[in-house]
Amino acid sequence: MPELRKDPITGRWVIISTERGKRPNDFLRETVPSPPNAKNCPFCPGNEAKTPPEILVYGRSNGGANTPGWTVRVVPNKFPALGIEGDLDREGEGLFDKMNGVGAHEVIVETPDHVATLASLPERAVEDVLWAYRDRMLDLKNDKRFRYVLIFKNHGEAAGASVDHTHSQLIALPIVPRRVREEVDSCWHYYDEKERCIFCDIIRQERDTGERVIGENDHFITLAPYAPRFPFEMWLLPKVHGSSYENNQSTMYASLARMLKDTLMRLDAVLDRPAYNFMIHTSPIGEEINDHYHWHIEIIPKLTKVAGFEWGTGFYINPTPPEESARFLREAKIASPLATAKK
Amino acid sequence: MPELRKDPITGRWVIISTERGKRPNDFLRETVPSPPNAKNCPFCPGNEAKTPPEILVYGRSNGGANTPGWTVRVVPNKFPALGIEGDLDREGEGLFDKMNGVGAHEVIVETPDHVATLASLPERAVEDVLWAYRDRMLDLKNDKRFRYVLIFKNHGEAAGASVDHTHSQLIALPIVPRRVREEVDSCWHYYDEKERCIFCDIIRQERDTGERVIGENDHFITLAPYAPRFPFEMWLLPKVHGSSYENNQSTMYASLARMLKDTLMRLDAVLDRPAYNFMIHTSPIGEEINDHYHWHIEIIPKLTKVAGFEWGTGFYINPTPPEESARFLREAKIASPLATAKK
Repeated sequence: MPELRKDPITGRWVIISTERGKRPNDFLRETVPSPPNAKNCPFCPGNEAKTPPEILVYGRSNGGANTPGWTVRVVPNKFPALGIEGDLDREGEGLFDKMNGVGAHEVIVETPDHVATLASLPERAVEDVLWAYRDRMLDLKNDKRFRYVLIFKNHGEAAGASVDHTHSQLIALPIVPRRVREEVDSCWHYYDEKERCIFCDIIRQERDTGERVIGENDHFITLAPYAPRFPFEMWLLPKVHGSSYENNQSTMYASLARMLKDTLMRLDAVLDRPAYNFMIHTSPIGEEINDHYHWHIEIIPKLTKVAGFEWGTGFYINPTPPEESARFLREAKIASPLATAKK
Repeated sequence: MPELRKDPITGRWVIISTERGKRPNDFLRETVPSPPNAKNCPFCPGNEAKTPPEILVYGRSNGGANTPGWTVRVVPNKFPALGIEGDLDREGEGLFDKMNGVGAHEVIVETPDHVATLASLPERAVEDVLWAYRDRMLDLKNDKRFRYVLIFKNHGEAAGASVDHTHSQLIALPIVPRRVREEVDSCWHYYDEKERCIFCDIIRQERDTGERVIGENDHFITLAPYAPRFPFEMWLLPKVHGSSYENNQSTMYASLARMLKDTLMRLDAVLDRPAYNFMIHTSPIGEEINDHYHWHIEIIPKLTKVAGFEWGTGFYINPTPPEESARFLREAKIASPLATAKK
């Protein structure tokens, strides 16, 4: 008998096939190939003119702006979903509501190395990417038009990436998206009732049972959530309460880099380098410091197709119980950066 | 400048690229191919034993159950997402909530013709499919465990179909999905304030401006919604208020068959027979007759990939303004069944 499970944060129910869950080999897996040709790649060193002028770089000691020598480079998206100039101009149209599509849309080029991935980069390079996320978030929060900054990554064409060279994206929005608002509000209701953060409670319970724990280090833990929408979905959370990504203690980013690299290496090992998305869930601008919301990263490999049932109901059918996916991921044979860090 | 538009029913914002919207030829289109081989098709006449025993058939005058001669055939899904036997058994698991995955999961085989589609079938055959939807809904509503019945269709592999032979699906659920609840409640709030159905108001406004109207006949209208999630998304609605699909006047189904066929033919003509999903949105069980909810069919062609931004925010980026998609669809050259019906 399949199981209906409810995600305690979003209230979303999912259908979990518990009988004989789909194992890694049951999925039609498409490995994300190594990018073929660096010559015309807009994110490769030497091709800096192919992108709009850079907003932030790390690592360049000599040379002018938009020249090689950088280790991480942030540029405006050449085909932005939102425009950076102008006012909001809210307006009605009969029954309907609209506003100008004002916002920021940036690309974080994670490395000059055309064939590297976040899983293959050295820990130190991954840490630089995490610092770039933070620095851009902090800078964009000064723009009074913005209410939310989303950092996300589309890895592989199947996950929506249109450029092969490894990169993440950032979108700053003039409104708090409904899905974020609902998640934050739901955590607030839980806190209001119990005086505890729901994510802190979940982490406590998951560490007790252990069956959905994928890995942990001093500061972070990776879990398969109890009611995942997708097979092999993972959540990476700080173990001590923290409400916003950009306000982490500076020592945390090195630790997060190791944990994220470890997690992505497990994903690559178990599912043969699949396409995936990840999203940083953090508190909205203006409510960064709070006791009820717990920032985290959600990682979803692209293994199944979203179809009519999901679009019609918001329910998801997940063919792999999280207890099974956690076991595969936990037991993956990798040269974990966590092991090295402990020495 | 792109535009942020809000869907008045769900409160969901979308980003619409208004500058130079993507036209039909700008999408990497994958035509759903004609199914190659009928020999082992579980939905073809003669292969009735390859499915679980039938629940409903139309058109068979002689011969026993599960033999050829039918025109529409409904069977349980061989790999059901939910199990039909057993009780709900709600249960807690520490912080978490679960229940048995009780529900119905059925397949509506729309025609014995292995290579037909809903767009190519004669109107009369499409009407039979619509009657089968209704009859199954009415039957399942007698099961006191169920609270919602969703009818949906995945057409083409890219839209999640795993069998080529044209078919729809039905899932009966023991809970009202959150997304359905939100939509119905939002309509109720509008009604509570204005004493009018929001969909009726939308239809009125859209017929006035005309720019997002794709087609209409006596009873139905097809629109490009004001804030569509996806390029070339369409909504097909009854013009006179009706709160549930299964309670339509019996004369309506022939009219709906013509309108649906017309709409799908336009989609095929403009986008070269794309993969698509459609979902029937109707009132939950036990609240079928009401003044605030307006049943309708949502049709979403599979042209873009849902990526990290959408998963992180619930926002959608739509590269085609609905005014443009409506124009392409409205002006499509097809041998419309509506034209014939008028004569």
